[in-house]
Amino acid sequence: MLLKAAPTLLRICVQTAIKPPAFYLSAGVVSSRDPLCAQHKGRLFSVSARSLKNNKRKSLWQQFAERRNMDGNTEEVLAPLRKAVKEQGDLVRQLKEEKAPAVDVSKAVAELKARKRVLEAKELALQPQDDIVDRPKLEDTLKRRFFYDQAFAIYGGVSGLYDFGPVGCALKNNIIQLWRQHFIQEEQILEIDCTMLTPEAVLKTSGHVEKFADFMVKDVKNGECFRADHLLKAHLQKLMSDKKCAAEKRAEMDSVVTQLDNYSQQELAELFVKYNVKSPVTGNDVSPPISFNLMFQTCIGPGGNMPGYLRPETAQGIFLNFKRLLEFNQGKLPFAAAQIGNSFRNEISPRSGLIRVREFTMAEIEHFVDPNDKSHPKFQSLADLELTLYSSKAQTSGQSAHKMKLGDAVEQGVINNSVLGYFIGRIYLYLVKVGVSPDKLRFRQHMDNEMAHYACDCWDAETKTSYGWIEIVGCADRSCYDLTCHARATKVPLVAEKPLKEAKTVNVVQFDANKGAIGKAYKKDAKLVMEYLAICDECYITEQERLLNEIGEFTIETEGKTFKLTQDMVSVKRFQKILHVEEIVPNVIEPSFGIGRIMYSIFEHTFHVREGDEQRTYFSFPATVAPYKCSVLPLSQNHEFVPFVRELSEALTRNGVSHKVDDSSGSIGRRYARTDEIGVAFGITIDFDTVNKTPHTATLRDRDCMRQIRAEVSDLPSIVRDLANGVTTWAEVETKYPIFEGQETGRKEMTEE
Amino acid sequence: MLLKAAPTLLRICVQTAIKPPAFYLSAGVVSSRDPLCAQHKGRLFSVSARSLKNNKRKSLWQQFAERRNMDGNTEEVLAPLRKAVKEQGDLVRQLKEEKAPAVDVSKAVAELKARKRVLEAKELALQPQDDIVDRPKLEDTLKRRFFYDQAFAIYGGVSGLYDFGPVGCALKNNIIQLWRQHFIQEEQILEIDCTMLTPEAVLKTSGHVEKFADFMVKDVKNGECFRADHLLKAHLQKLMSDKKCAAEKRAEMDSVVTQLDNYSQQELAELFVKYNVKSPVTGNDVSPPISFNLMFQTCIGPGGNMPGYLRPETAQGIFLNFKRLLEFNQGKLPFAAAQIGNSFRNEISPRSGLIRVREFTMAEIEHFVDPNDKSHPKFQSLADLELTLYSSKAQTSGQSAHKMKLGDAVEQGVINNSVLGYFIGRIYLYLVKVGVSPDKLRFRQHMDNEMAHYACDCWDAETKTSYGWIEIVGCADRSCYDLTCHARATKVPLVAEKPLKEAKTVNVVQFDANKGAIGKAYKKDAKLVMEYLAICDECYITEQERLLNEIGEFTIETEGKTFKLTQDMVSVKRFQKILHVEEIVPNVIEPSFGIGRIMYSIFEHTFHVREGDEQRTYFSFPATVAPYKCSVLPLSQNHEFVPFVRELSEALTRNGVSHKVDDSSGSIGRRYARTDEIGVAFGITIDFDTVNKTPHTATLRDRDCMRQIRAEVSDLPSIVRDLANGVTTWAEVETKYPIFEGQETGRKEMTEE
Repeated sequence: MLLKAAPTLLRICVQTAIKPPAFYLSAGVVSSRDPLCAQHKGRLFSVSARSLKNNKRKSLWQQFAERRNMDGNTEEVLAPLRKAVKEQGDLVRQLKEEKAPAVDVSKAVAELKARKRVLEAKELALQPQDDIVDRPKLEDTLKRRFFYDQAFAIYGGVSGLYDFGPVGCALKNNIIQLWRQHFIQEEQILEIDCTMLTPEAVLKTSGHVEKFADFMVKDVKNGECFRADHLLKAHLQKLMSDKKCAAEKRAEMDSVVTQLDNYSQQELAELFVKYNVKSPVTGNDVSPPISFNLMFQTCIGPGGNMPGYLRPETAQGIFLNFKRLLEFNQGKLPFAAAQIGNSFRNEISPRSGLIRVREFTMAEIEHFVDPNDKSHPKFQSLADLELTLYSSKAQTSGQSAHKMKLGDAVEQGVINNSVLGYFIGRIYLYLVKVGVSPDKLRFRQHMDNEMAHYACDCWDAETKTSYGWIEIVGCADRSCYDLTCHARATKVPLVAEKPLKEAKTVNVVQFDANKGAIGKAYKKDAKLVMEYLAICDECYITEQERLLNEIGEFTIETEGKTFKLTQDMVSVKRFQKILHVEEIVPNVIEPSFGIGRIMYSIFEHTFHVREGDEQRTYFSFPATVAPYKCSVLPLSQNHEFVPFVRELSEALTRNGVSHKVDDSSGSIGRRYARTDEIGVAFGITIDFDTVNKTPHTATLRDRDCMRQIRAEVSDLPSIVRDLANGVTTWAEVETKYPIFEGQETGRKEMTEE
Repeated sequence: MLLKAAPTLLRICVQTAIKPPAFYLSAGVVSSRDPLCAQHKGRLFSVSARSLKNNKRKSLWQQFAERRNMDGNTEEVLAPLRKAVKEQGDLVRQLKEEKAPAVDVSKAVAELKARKRVLEAKELALQPQDDIVDRPKLEDTLKRRFFYDQAFAIYGGVSGLYDFGPVGCALKNNIIQLWRQHFIQEEQILEIDCTMLTPEAVLKTSGHVEKFADFMVKDVKNGECFRADHLLKAHLQKLMSDKKCAAEKRAEMDSVVTQLDNYSQQELAELFVKYNVKSPVTGNDVSPPISFNLMFQTCIGPGGNMPGYLRPETAQGIFLNFKRLLEFNQGKLPFAAAQIGNSFRNEISPRSGLIRVREFTMAEIEHFVDPNDKSHPKFQSLADLELTLYSSKAQTSGQSAHKMKLGDAVEQGVINNSVLGYFIGRIYLYLVKVGVSPDKLRFRQHMDNEMAHYACDCWDAETKTSYGWIEIVGCADRSCYDLTCHARATKVPLVAEKPLKEAKTVNVVQFDANKGAIGKAYKKDAKLVMEYLAICDECYITEQERLLNEIGEFTIETEGKTFKLTQDMVSVKRFQKILHVEEIVPNVIEPSFGIGRIMYSIFEHTFHVREGDEQRTYFSFPATVAPYKCSVLPLSQNHEFVPFVRELSEALTRNGVSHKVDDSSGSIGRRYARTDEIGVAFGITIDFDTVNKTPHTATLRDRDCMRQIRAEVSDLPSIVRDLANGVTTWAEVETKYPIFEGQETGRKEMTEE
């Protein structure tokens, strides 16, 4: 059903309007998740290190070979690869149906993933090369104009930490402000702001203490650390590239590389020994792989007895405040809460700029909903929205992503429910609004094996960049998992009450505790025992009742202590109760945004070189997010220009228009180029006509088309304000004001130099 | 010269318009800094724990005694206390002039501070009691309506960590947004965004690793920690309160309490032994005082060899990026950079709500200026601004704070320079704009002994709260201290170039290093030596030259290694050079805002009880910062009201007006009360006339005066938008639209129920 539309991925790339020449023929492959993280959370941003490495390692010859294919029929080239994926996908399904041994299934899945990677790499490689950004040129601009740069550079720098300069910071603020407007305001979401410092107990419950980790090995002599999977893979690839390597041996190693995501600590350790892996830097031996937790640890308070971490995500703060938020919402479901803030991840060896960093800004929404009613009242407003979906089924069948209407996707069950569908649509609209190219944006569904076990459905918004496809937003239906975990750990019920349409009679099963007997037996611990017995569920009670009947006792464990309970202490009572409300544990739909990755995608998608001038670059940021909305450029340094600059600057400020005055002595063309380079959306130039003629007029220039109009100085601030707010468009402005062609009426008219 | 105006502190309190009844007669005293912090930075927020404690401990009898005085002539009561301060202030000056031993000076200063505290406590106590907020009532509202609450409560909570709920978070965002507008936009400041994780080297240079600490003692048995000064003081006060305590002994202990800020670790240890201080909780012995660093430590990266901290302030990130920022500003001075973000402080025992927390949001500006030209071009625009200044001289002479014009204060040298003066004025305007009461706001100058040694002048914005006067903004002229320290540590020159009006011939003194000889002697370390010699200053060179002449050698230390340099390796050369530019190390003026403390002050200053109804409270937040601008309240749950609610809600969203729909079944009065309680600025009520009559009109209510007007539904969103942006005022709205008195035209007109 998903497959009706023709494969669109290739087509849409060709449509891309602006095509900067590229130094690199990128062949990045889709992001795959860190193995542990994927199993664990299903929502932690990652980009496959493999894809990054492949990219660099690709020889010129390979690039050339791939480029050649572009002229031929690309589908012809891809067909055998698609077939290979489909065959393997069928095999996986078959094994699952036959309930084959887990080891066979996971091996088949690993092979499926590997085939998918090859297919996608090829797809990317076959796309027009001029669709890919000139990354060195882009990075030079970002650094030179201080969009962002390595933190602590004068102290030697720390990898994975970046500071945003004035332009980057303004862009980031605008992206966040638009996020607030698009989600918090328009969806009436409750925004909260929780601490980053988090005590250990919380992150034990969430699973991060145990599972938020990567395997690492250490150089035994100098202590240098490497990610185990990265190092093993690099080592095997080096061995395989040796011409003397026997075909059989090569196939064996290839199989190891394919399954890299699946190995346990012990298996990895054995592989390191088997292949005699050393430090690539020193040649020294390395330690066996150890699990390295990716959270930054610290101690809260002076006693040293409250270990804590910097939060790895902002979501937990929302779950912990669920009760307060529900009350704030007057007890009613559905409602959504959100948080914008920094999270931390102590990467073993961070690379690839803003995409993999140790401290990053996230924006997360938790939409709490009745599990029996996952329909969104506003979904219809987005049902006709068409976007590129890459369903799990397409992925396991060797097909491409498809354009599809949201309404169809939900109706056909491609997307699990309309709440999830609604958010996918809203995410799409947001990303396009802030400057992500719709042609380089797709939503990829998690396959069964990469989704957290408790999640019903999960989609990632991915953008196509010079690093390949990278995940920038995750959108998961996490069912009732998080609230249930925290409720169990804290014994605080995290539930909502739902009025029943008609009262309901239910059977209740409870322990009937004999307070006296328990008090006698366990003294001051009796309270603990009583509390424990009070919260047990029917299933557990029935099980213990059996023991009680069979052997006359059962044992409970609470707060690290063990208590034996006998027939004189406890019995089981059953009765009926009439309910007017029912308690439900809400399900949660979680859109989770990586602000840094969104920014990076915008940088790549809006970076252009002026036609005919390789040296002049600009960012076509949408005016609403542009770091500065406007520049003010006096054509001359003559003092008669000064009052006009001041007046305009003050009026722009009054109108809330961020702007940059450049009264340096450079030529006007050079100053335009400098402001274009940082993506200033519009430019007001005060020229000799401004000064000499009444009414005083000045020119306004649009960065993207470089055309100018002329308007009265007093009108300009509100024109720019309306342009920046999206109230009007440049095309509309051009219809209202005279187009202006040349800048100077000549200095001769000036009264003095 | 400062003393021309009559003491105003008492007068302005009487003027306060709205006077909620008070449970507490507060007698908080001015904030004094943590001793080490004050010596070290001169800009870290603190509130004297002493003041908080005093407040609680004050007996009803004391309160009564103080209250009685209010009826008499307050100046008469204060006169002897003022005299005592003045006498001690004179003594301190005299001792300093006579260059008396440091120990005598510091003892006299401590006594001066103690006398000041007594005077200020009395001043506060003599003020009208109904000027002080009903704190329990305020705190109940803040918690119940989830403005903010303890973080991790369902896990037992962590002291000093708070989560902001929807209302608090919206207020915080609005305060920050207004800060951006008021400072970043209007002053064209460069905003940046740096990481919180900071490697140790940076904080060693800044002095935080060594000096950002408090002394603490531990219960030797259970490990509980106490701040040493707090514990010692509480212990001595308990001893002194014993009636059997001899007068002589009491005087001795009183003197210890007075000097508490001045003791070294060793002296504190001796006092703990002398007075046999035990844990107040368990009675167990306590350890000797140890210095506890207040930064949260962690490890960056997997190796464990890069210790780092969570930043204790945002300022360092700006200093480290100075070069990039200067370049961004095209090399020109003055310019300012700013940062808004979280900082961390691992308090030993945090108390007093938002005022002393472990994680907090700051906003800091660093205004870099030529040290020879500390005048601000826009200062004249603020010269007539009158605000309450509490100069160092007034403090040491026993006088009160005075109202003064900024222009006079700078002209008379009360404020060191007009850049500092300009920022003080801008801070004042900002604070009043966001809701701080101008009557409860003063600027207090640091006295010589509390100012960091390198600072020229430092003023704190302080607000009067139920905790006494608390510092909410610091504004310091930090001279060239920070840039100089980082430049020295990194060997990266952090300077600006200033074109000379005319070229200048200067004498240059340099080491002339013999590369061959040094290379031969020190092999691969030769580079280190050469680098070191290249950056020495004239003073150092002259000193070493003397050694070279006298004993034929001198020794240098760099990167932990020592090198001996002899006459064959190095000589000194002197020559003249013509300079066209000069290098200057900019001075920096640093306004530093504690967002949480500003918020808390706003809560206290805007919290009111409705006249005649003790149970109804409201926050009179200015509309620009109000968490929600508007409520939408349908008078009935009838389905005919629904389209009007939806239409209004959508139109308000389009106009960027944050709002809250309350369609619950409560009476309209009750719903007004609920929205007033969280400070919603305006309320639109859809009543039966809205539904039944055309044109459709609805009522708009102002929270503070509770009056209403009636306007067309389609006009209301833009009216509220203009009110919320400050474009129009309620008074203006009342002149344009008919005043509305009662709400209902009666249900009978409805077509159906």
